[in-house]
Amino acid sequence: MIKELIAKNRSYRRFFEETTIEYDTLRELVDLARLSASAANLQPLKYILSCEPRKNARIFRNLAWAGYLKDWPGPSEGERPSAYIVIVADRQIAFSVDCDHGIAAQSILLGAAERGLGGCIIASVQKDRLRQELDIPDRYEILLVLALGKPAESVVIEQAGRDGEIKYWRDKEGTHHVPKRSLDEIIIG
Amino acid sequence: MIKELIAKNRSYRRFFEETTIEYDTLRELVDLARLSASAANLQPLKYILSCEPRKNARIFRNLAWAGYLKDWPGPSEGERPSAYIVIVADRQIAFSVDCDHGIAAQSILLGAAERGLGGCIIASVQKDRLRQELDIPDRYEILLVLALGKPAESVVIEQAGRDGEIKYWRDKEGTHHVPKRSLDEIIIG
Repeated sequence: MIKELIAKNRSYRRFFEETTIEYDTLRELVDLARLSASAANLQPLKYILSCEPRKNARIFRNLAWAGYLKDWPGPSEGERPSAYIVIVADRQIAFSVDCDHGIAAQSILLGAAERGLGGCIIASVQKDRLRQELDIPDRYEILLVLALGKPAESVVIEQAGRDGEIKYWRDKEGTHHVPKRSLDEIIIG
Repeated sequence: MIKELIAKNRSYRRFFEETTIEYDTLRELVDLARLSASAANLQPLKYILSCEPRKNARIFRNLAWAGYLKDWPGPSEGERPSAYIVIVADRQIAFSVDCDHGIAAQSILLGAAERGLGGCIIASVQKDRLRQELDIPDRYEILLVLALGKPAESVVIEQAGRDGEIKYWRDKEGTHHVPKRSLDEIIIG
């Protein structure tokens, strides 16, 4: 059931870093994005894969983690992602992208969840520095970085309060809590 | 397998219009979007549901269909969508949306595919007119319209040619062909 897979597909930020992800697995995940919808079927998205420690490190140091967890600077060594998929837009194909990258990211992460992996969609990226470090030509606009690994944390969904508070938080046991708005709040009209 | 579901989840534009979709089914589909990722967990997306002929007609006449099929003005009576989900952004929550609507649309359409339904993500919408017809307050920005129904056409994926031609086309039997770029073309670096 797709509902179980979507429920399982939480945003994870701590991983068993020693559990590696094969390059071919990343290719299979990108294939899920390839088969997904694209506006006017233009398919402007391109993908840069990383599952090798030195390349992973070059990506990791240009990412910002979990804005609401003010006293947590991000995953420490040993709990960092084992792999990344950088989603870029090929400006020679489309000058701007509306929601193709969201469609692609969701397909990839559902595929990861099915394989017992997990990840996080990161848009808070030092793009100029990442471009330099990975030697990405100007032709490609960096849109998102998907961090991937075997999740090493527990994430639970809970009902957002009446105060509308939606900031996620981490309890003393390290469980990550994510308040979601109710169905009645998000269906209007 | 998520791959089969993603492969099944084509963009459909002709439907068995007499096959209705229940309001509760639309709610279940929106619940899949509700449980999906949202940037900074802000959850600015709201949803307007329609599965009633008069409301459907008010939405339908503000949509543009299949830009590449120049001699096809869109589905005729009897093959139009049975339902719609209009995705809007609540500007009181977030001033702009990056890719949340793509994530949400993909979750909803995968849920539809699992139920034997299908649909199409439509961004080419006469938004001002649709706002008037559905009486949508200015607070909400119209992002996408998802057209939904029981598919009445066959859609096949094929390999994009070396010439890079990606325009979809319809053959004499009415089968819709969608050229997709190869995995080797979209993985770079």
